[in-house]
Amino acid sequence: MPDYVPHLKLTHEGALKMLAAGIAKAQAMGQPQCITIVDDGGHLLAFVRMDGARVLSIDSSRKKAMSAASGRTPTGQMAAANELKLALATDGKVTNLLGGVPVIVDGHTIGAVGVGSGTGEQDLEVAQAAIAALEGARAF
Amino acid sequence: MPDYVPHLKLTHEGALKMLAAGIAKAQAMGQPQCITIVDDGGHLLAFVRMDGARVLSIDSSRKKAMSAASGRTPTGQMAAANELKLALATDGKVTNLLGGVPVIVDGHTIGAVGVGSGTGEQDLEVAQAAIAALEGARAF
Amino acid sequence: MPDYVPHLKLTHEGALKMLAAGIAKAQAMGQPQCITIVDDGGHLLAFVRMDGARVLSIDSSRKKAMSAASGRTPTGQMAAANELKLALATDGKVTNLLGGVPVIVDGHTIGAVGVGSGTGEQDLEVAQAAIAALEGARAF
Amino acid sequence: MPDYVPHLKLTHEGALKMLAAGIAKAQAMGQPQCITIVDDGGHLLAFVRMDGARVLSIDSSRKKAMSAASGRTPTGQMAAANELKLALATDGKVTNLLGGVPVIVDGHTIGAVGVGSGTGEQDLEVAQAAIAALEGARAF
Repeated sequence: MPDYVPHLKLTHEGALKMLAAGIAKAQAMGQPQCITIVDDGGHLLAFVRMDGARVLSIDSSRKKAMSAASGRTPTGQMAAANELKLALATDGKVTNLLGGVPVIVDGHTIGAVGVGSGTGEQDLEVAQAAIAALEGARAF
Repeated sequence: MPDYVPHLKLTHEGALKMLAAGIAKAQAMGQPQCITIVDDGGHLLAFVRMDGARVLSIDSSRKKAMSAASGRTPTGQMAAANELKLALATDGKVTNLLGGVPVIVDGHTIGAVGVGSGTGEQDLEVAQAAIAALEGARAF
Repeated sequence: MPDYVPHLKLTHEGALKMLAAGIAKAQAMGQPQCITIVDDGGHLLAFVRMDGARVLSIDSSRKKAMSAASGRTPTGQMAAANELKLALATDGKVTNLLGGVPVIVDGHTIGAVGVGSGTGEQDLEVAQAAIAALEGARAF
Repeated sequence: MPDYVPHLKLTHEGALKMLAAGIAKAQAMGQPQCITIVDDGGHLLAFVRMDGARVLSIDSSRKKAMSAASGRTPTGQMAAANELKLALATDGKVTNLLGGVPVIVDGHTIGAVGVGSGTGEQDLEVAQAAIAALEGARAF
C-alpha cells in the first residue's frame, strides 16, 4: 500500500457553479433556499442564503452537507431507529433530513451540497440541480 | 435584482410595548411568564422574566421566538416527523413548542415573540397579546 | 417613537456581487481568501473559500464580518486594552483583527464583509473591494 | 446555624424600573445601550437593546451583569494579571470590562445590571443610573 494516493479536490469555481445552479433551480420553483457546499471534510466552501430563506436553515443546510460528505450518500436514507441517536452522538452534526447530497467523481467523494428552507423534497431537488452542474459528478 | 431592498425594523419602543402587553395578559391569567422579543435575525431585543416564571423558560422562550422569526410562522405547526430532527440540526435553535409568534408588518417579518412557563396554550395566548399591541402587525 | 422604522436589507444578489468583487481582488493580488458576507445581525448571507485559503479562516472571516456588522465600523480600531476582554465577553464573536468592514447605505448598516487568509492589510483590501462593488455603499 | 435564612429577591417590577432608568440615562447621553438585569444567580430578569446599540453587546452586557452578581462588586476592579485567566477559567463568564454593577440591598446581593455599547465609562454611568432607581440599593 502506498503512503498516499491520488485524490480529487473540489475547487471554489466548482462550488460556485453548484451554487449558481442551485439558485436557478430554487428560483424556478419559487422557494428561496439556503445552499451550503462543503469539501470532503465537511468544511464550508461556498454558501448563499437567498432572499426569504430561513435564517436557521443556515445551520440545517450545513448539517445536511456535512452528513452527506461524511456518509458518502444522500441524507434521508438512515434507519429511523438510529437517526436521533446518531444526531445526538455527533453533537447534532449528523442529520437524516432530506436535502444533503454528496459530490462523487470517479469514485472519489470530494464534497457535498446541503439545502434547506423548503420541504424536504424541494431541498433535495435543489441539491440534485447543484450536483448536475458538475460534469462527471454522480447523479442521485 | 437590486443590491438592497426596503425593509422595516422593530424599535425598542415597539418591543417594550409588546413586553408590557404580554405581562398584562399573563397577570390577567394568573400565570407568570418569560417573554422574549427578538428582531428578524433572532437576536434579543427585549425580555422579562416575571416573578414565579421558570428560570429554564429563559431558554425555551428564546428558542420559540427565534423559530418564529426564522420560519415566519407561529411555532407548533411543524410536521411531527421533522421537529426533533430540525431541533438537532440547528443545535436546538428550532423548536416546535407552542408560544412563538412572528411580528409581520406589511409583509415584512421584523421580529418575533416567544413565551414560556405556562401551558402551550397559555404561552401562545400571551404571545398573541404581545403581537396585538403593535399597530399594523398581522394577527395569528 | 414609532414601533417600527424604515430600514434596508442586503439582497443575496448584492451579497454575491460583493463575493465576486472580493474574489477578483484576491486573485489580482495572488492571495486566496475566505470571504464572508453577513446581514446586519451577523448571520451568513454568502461565503466562499478560495482554493488555497486557510480552512480556519472560515471562522476568522466570519468573526470579522460579525464584528464589523455589530460595531458599524471596520475592525482593527478597538482600543488594545479592551480587545481581548471583548473577545472573551462575546464568546469569541468580537475580533479586532483587520479585514472586517460594514456595509453602510444611506446611514443604515445592512451587513458586513469579513476576509481572512492573507495579511491583515491584504484582508482589508479585499473587503474594501467587496464593499466598492455595491453602489451607494460607504467606502472605508 | 439555621438550615435556611431570610433573603431578598429582585422582582420583575424592580428590574423593569432599573431598565427604564437606564434607558432614560442612555438617551440623555445620546448613546444607545444594551442593558441586562440579572438575579443573584446571574440569570436573566430583564433586558433591552436600544435602537442603534450593538448586537454583540447583548453578550457582553450579560457577562458584565453576571460578573457583578457573582463578585458582588462592580466590574473593572479585578487585578489586571488575573482578568484574562479568570475569563478563560469560566468559559468567558467573568469579565472585567466596565459596566457591571451589583444590586445590594441591606447587605444582600439580589442581582446586578450590565451595560454595553458605549465607552466603559458611559456603560458604568448607565448602570449606576439603573441602580439609583431602586430605593435602598447601595450606590457604587
